[in-house]
Amino acid sequence: MQFDKYILQKIDEELKNYVNKDDKLYNASKHLLFAGGKRIRPYLTVVTYMLKKDDIEKVLPAAVAVELIHNYTLIHDDIMDNDDERRGKPTVHKVYGEPIAILAGDLLYAKAFEAVSKINNEKKSYEVLKILSKACVDVCEGQAMDMEFENYFPSMEEYLEMIRKKTGALLEAAVEIGAVMGDCNEEERKALKEYAKRIGLTFQIQDDILDLIGDKKKIGKPVGSDIREGKKTIIVIHALKTLDEDNKKKLLNVLGNKNISDEEIKEIIEILKPSIDYAKNLMKQKTEEAKNYLKIFDKDRRKVLEDLADFIIERIY
Amino acid sequence: MQFDKYILQKIDEELKNYVNKDDKLYNASKHLLFAGGKRIRPYLTVVTYMLKKDDIEKVLPAAVAVELIHNYTLIHDDIMDNDDERRGKPTVHKVYGEPIAILAGDLLYAKAFEAVSKINNEKKSYEVLKILSKACVDVCEGQAMDMEFENYFPSMEEYLEMIRKKTGALLEAAVEIGAVMGDCNEEERKALKEYAKRIGLTFQIQDDILDLIGDKKKIGKPVGSDIREGKKTIIVIHALKTLDEDNKKKLLNVLGNKNISDEEIKEIIEILKPSIDYAKNLMKQKTEEAKNYLKIFDKDRRKVLEDLADFIIERIY
Repeated sequence: MQFDKYILQKIDEELKNYVNKDDKLYNASKHLLFAGGKRIRPYLTVVTYMLKKDDIEKVLPAAVAVELIHNYTLIHDDIMDNDDERRGKPTVHKVYGEPIAILAGDLLYAKAFEAVSKINNEKKSYEVLKILSKACVDVCEGQAMDMEFENYFPSMEEYLEMIRKKTGALLEAAVEIGAVMGDCNEEERKALKEYAKRIGLTFQIQDDILDLIGDKKKIGKPVGSDIREGKKTIIVIHALKTLDEDNKKKLLNVLGNKNISDEEIKEIIEILKPSIDYAKNLMKQKTEEAKNYLKIFDKDRRKVLEDLADFIIERIY
Repeated sequence: MQFDKYILQKIDEELKNYVNKDDKLYNASKHLLFAGGKRIRPYLTVVTYMLKKDDIEKVLPAAVAVELIHNYTLIHDDIMDNDDERRGKPTVHKVYGEPIAILAGDLLYAKAFEAVSKINNEKKSYEVLKILSKACVDVCEGQAMDMEFENYFPSMEEYLEMIRKKTGALLEAAVEIGAVMGDCNEEERKALKEYAKRIGLTFQIQDDILDLIGDKKKIGKPVGSDIREGKKTIIVIHALKTLDEDNKKKLLNVLGNKNISDEEIKEIIEILKPSIDYAKNLMKQKTEEAKNYLKIFDKDRRKVLEDLADFIIERIY
């Protein structure tokens, strides 16, 4: 699928309204915001809204609120994880230093809620505020869980809870906010919530898969980074449950070892193959479920959301 | 003056509702929040509300939203400034490490807007959201200005703009939010805004003065910390404009010198005396102005706000 260029342009124009100053703080805030992100979240908000409405101007403040939150979390996460690069570019704290990077994240956070306050309908603004602030709490809790996982091997249930919060919460919020802005009724909102839950899950799984079998240039980081950093992805957790003792030992030996060679990574990916297949099958199943929940909507109007569900598990970056 | 214990207790009870989990992230978020802050901001919101209303339950979510924002900024500021202590206790990042401290601030930020979404009136919630998100932007911009001041000597105008944003914005928001929650009319809101602007200014000036002539134990940090850190306070800026060349040189020599002795600090404070007097006079004048703006309110009801204006410039911590 191709993202609608008109919608993407509208989103970027609206985003610029919130960061139109030209000093160190604002430049730091814009560094990642305009570094070529996919805009999946605000796009989800807009196309969910378009299930029932056509005038997209009205949904833009709500859509960019979600994107601003997403970008604040990336800036702060990169500091916490001490990552040097994102999307193939140096991270904000590498360019501007940690203090300004913390503050740039804080500024985008404020701008997100300023965007919510620009929604031209008190009742809808109030609803969006509820959804977005709750999602922000979840994202923090999910990030804390992820950091805790560095110290032990989580169960599959714990892993799923973590990604539901860390990655899923904001994707769900993007869809829910689109539904609120589009005047969806209770039944429609419920169906969209189920849809969103599933694509939130598949989004993270595809990220985990791309880390192992993606193209270094497209994903903007070396293949196997998660292995070197010892990340407990769904693939690793599944492998540790299913591998024989010999292969399990091999996996545990390289997990979190920053000095392993590309050759060793290749061998590990071979060992992980059944778990990658497991993850791919899970994604396919969840994508079908997600699309089924859309059946209550108009066939033509729901197509973009169906395509998006497919895109998420087929994307190569 | 004495803060009303019942109001303070109500504020603390409401705050606890937002952080009632017991894991590392939440404990880090509570570390500073319950470390003996004065609660001036939520108290301002409540007593402004009480100019016209009596049922304080309704204003509590709005009041704690302001306090939660205040605490997030303190946690992040302490990381940016690399401060080890606040209120005589180790800072959050010293106890929990930087990653969790960043995240604890982010969580309180989210909880603040969650609190706004708990205001039981859509229209008021919307108004509060506008005021609070705008204040959050100002606070970030003010903090960035303050950090820039490390590299040059700001003019008095620049200094005043910085503290209006960094310190004043949230104190002003506290009062404005109280006015919105209390159904103040346009005229009343305008008067309260003028009141708040002035106490925002005097609050920061008194902080600057206490750093020089306060009691180490009460202010929770060594006397003259601002001098050692090279902070350009209103007192320093005034002194640099008014001192003779000899004393100006002495001041510039110690400013930002972390190794100066207590004796040298004493000598500098002596030199700064006329500028401290200037700052004190300015505070007195602004406090009178602030109180004059309250004259349109009922005599008995406005007394707490009058007393608060006095308290701010008389407080010893």
